[in-house]
Amino acid sequence: MRTVKVSLGSRSYRIRIGDDLLDVLGRECSRLDLGKRCAVITDTRVAPHYADRILRALGAQDFHPRLIVIPAGESSKSLPVVDRCYQELSDHRLDRQSFVVALGGGVVGDLAGFVAATYLRGIGFVQVPTTLLAQVDSSVGGKVGINLRSAKNLVGAFHQPKLVLTDLRVLDTLPPREFRSGLAEVIKYGVIWDPALFRLLERSMGKILSRDRAVLARVIARCCDIKAEVVTQDEQEGGLRAILNFGHTIGHGIEALAGYGRYLHGEAVAIGMVAACRLSHALTGLSRDEGARIVNLLKQAGLPVSVQLTHPRRTRLFEILSLDKKTSGGRPRFVLAHRIGHVLHGQEVPPQSIADTLASLSGSEFNSLATPSRPRSRQQPCPPAGKENDVQRE
Amino acid sequence: MRTVKVSLGSRSYRIRIGDDLLDVLGRECSRLDLGKRCAVITDTRVAPHYADRILRALGAQDFHPRLIVIPAGESSKSLPVVDRCYQELSDHRLDRQSFVVALGGGVVGDLAGFVAATYLRGIGFVQVPTTLLAQVDSSVGGKVGINLRSAKNLVGAFHQPKLVLTDLRVLDTLPPREFRSGLAEVIKYGVIWDPALFRLLERSMGKILSRDRAVLARVIARCCDIKAEVVTQDEQEGGLRAILNFGHTIGHGIEALAGYGRYLHGEAVAIGMVAACRLSHALTGLSRDEGARIVNLLKQAGLPVSVQLTHPRRTRLFEILSLDKKTSGGRPRFVLAHRIGHVLHGQEVPPQSIADTLASLSGSEFNSLATPSRPRSRQQPCPPAGKENDVQRE
Repeated sequence: MRTVKVSLGSRSYRIRIGDDLLDVLGRECSRLDLGKRCAVITDTRVAPHYADRILRALGAQDFHPRLIVIPAGESSKSLPVVDRCYQELSDHRLDRQSFVVALGGGVVGDLAGFVAATYLRGIGFVQVPTTLLAQVDSSVGGKVGINLRSAKNLVGAFHQPKLVLTDLRVLDTLPPREFRSGLAEVIKYGVIWDPALFRLLERSMGKILSRDRAVLARVIARCCDIKAEVVTQDEQEGGLRAILNFGHTIGHGIEALAGYGRYLHGEAVAIGMVAACRLSHALTGLSRDEGARIVNLLKQAGLPVSVQLTHPRRTRLFEILSLDKKTSGGRPRFVLAHRIGHVLHGQEVPPQSIADTLASLSGSEFNSLATPSRPRSRQQPCPPAGKENDVQRE
Repeated sequence: MRTVKVSLGSRSYRIRIGDDLLDVLGRECSRLDLGKRCAVITDTRVAPHYADRILRALGAQDFHPRLIVIPAGESSKSLPVVDRCYQELSDHRLDRQSFVVALGGGVVGDLAGFVAATYLRGIGFVQVPTTLLAQVDSSVGGKVGINLRSAKNLVGAFHQPKLVLTDLRVLDTLPPREFRSGLAEVIKYGVIWDPALFRLLERSMGKILSRDRAVLARVIARCCDIKAEVVTQDEQEGGLRAILNFGHTIGHGIEALAGYGRYLHGEAVAIGMVAACRLSHALTGLSRDEGARIVNLLKQAGLPVSVQLTHPRRTRLFEILSLDKKTSGGRPRFVLAHRIGHVLHGQEVPPQSIADTLASLSGSEFNSLATPSRPRSRQQPCPPAGKENDVQRE
């Protein structure tokens, strides 16, 4: 079992990564200072596989869990589902010592975390992520939330879990498309922080896609390490943490445009990363070669790297971007790469560059960025190196 | 203008108390590090009196406020109203630098605070309390939240305001019943913390009821001082802060039993304080004389001190108490008085004593506590003095 520590003072916690950890959930929870009543929130896709094991593991240590099964899919990250969970917690008489276990992917974790963050002004919360995406990203760092009709994750809280239990064997039952979706976030960590991880992914994508557990354990632990490091430095996204949003500004926009659930999160982020690479090439000096490597790695992982958008859809997407949470003073801010392992956050991008990039997304080749914007963009000075927005790890 | 500082590190803020402060809201906000977009959340009762002045005060400093008027009354502290506010904030494109102004009483403050705590994982928040109750209690300390069908304030967050602006002149338009309701919390501060404040209230209740502004300024500032002191010592209710709940356990139960809105909060708390006094007399040594003084001061303030409950209603109230947030391990905990100015929190109370006390609430005299429970309760040892639950200020 590998352990990654997230150091946040009184809110510190451990991420346990290994095989067959579901069965030790009760034992791990009994080491925390928690009451006996709890709720397990999971969804209709995960419950048939793992709910019984989780309930048994908790029951064996005298916990009294209430099982709450929500409909699978992004549309469950909504206020009506939150309301239903509150009622179940109240019916089961959860008190301030009680806790919530999130058994599932990012949707379950975000929703259950928001419920735990706000029920009785915040109760304990344990993450048992069952998708690759949740294991490397959403279960770590304490961002929880739900969607509004107008935008994704517009409502939420920072609420750190007490424990993250990552069982590698649950990935065996993960559908291939879900697995690939998680790889988008894995690749993102290489781009934003760690060229060595990026090269490992380039070398080992075959093994990863065949779900070689030894490689996966190494990759997942490294991703959690990176996220823990970033979150420790900037828990509430005052600055550095924004780099985790590489590819997410346009990615979230594409999800909202298509209707939540049409694209998996990682698929939308993959397209968003391609867009971010094109903007990075135009504005922050990402080389054509490295841009192409990123696009190729996404393709190797079986992720989409292009999307057909009619002109009216692009206009609508542009509007959605203006409402993005990462907006400051009405202008969207982007995370852009200087090279693999080195990104800059808080980048303002000229509206014309955004429009050109959206127009270019129907092509999958890296060099398909509409040429007219490049000469103009090149005249934009790169942000000076060494400033607070400058992040580098090699 | 009086100023009370609430010292909470990076979350510190000032409470400004004085006449005609509504008109300086814009100027006060412009001293804070906030963006120009904001929302003013108020209700149908307050809006006709003060919304225009507040919008003008903000507009004069180049803020761009969106006015959101919710129905007056406790039933607005609900998820559907929260949802509507989220949509309005999103439509008005509030971003992370934006803020919410709560213009109204406790319902508006709690609801608007919860919206601000969760929109974009938390944006700025300014309280402009327009009821006595909100001025002395709910606007200070950062507890925000909404009700579920099953219980009051079951969902919420800790989210400190950036500023509290308390205009004494708005009390002129407060209906007498609302004003008296606020006095319940004022009296509570005397009981839990400050015998001198309690004696001032005994001497000056006539002037207070005629809304003498000089006395009110002194009393409100002292209440805010006490609350600031308690909250500074224990922001998230790990211990001491619980003393602010004196009278609230049974008070909240009575509100839930009668249906929210039937009793004003202070009215239910007044009855709850009478119940707490009786339990305190039986269990923690509150003298009959001091118990009678507290009940008499509540009566002087025009507050209810008794309630007729049939046996089935008492049984239901007992059930509601078991679900109270202040429950620990399924048993309700009470704040009980040792004497005026000195209370103990986290007190477990034998179920029979609770039942006897609920049965006694139809009588308004202090000595009407059903005698059978007293000899038994007297055998309960008082908690040893000087322990962590022991609070005294003189």
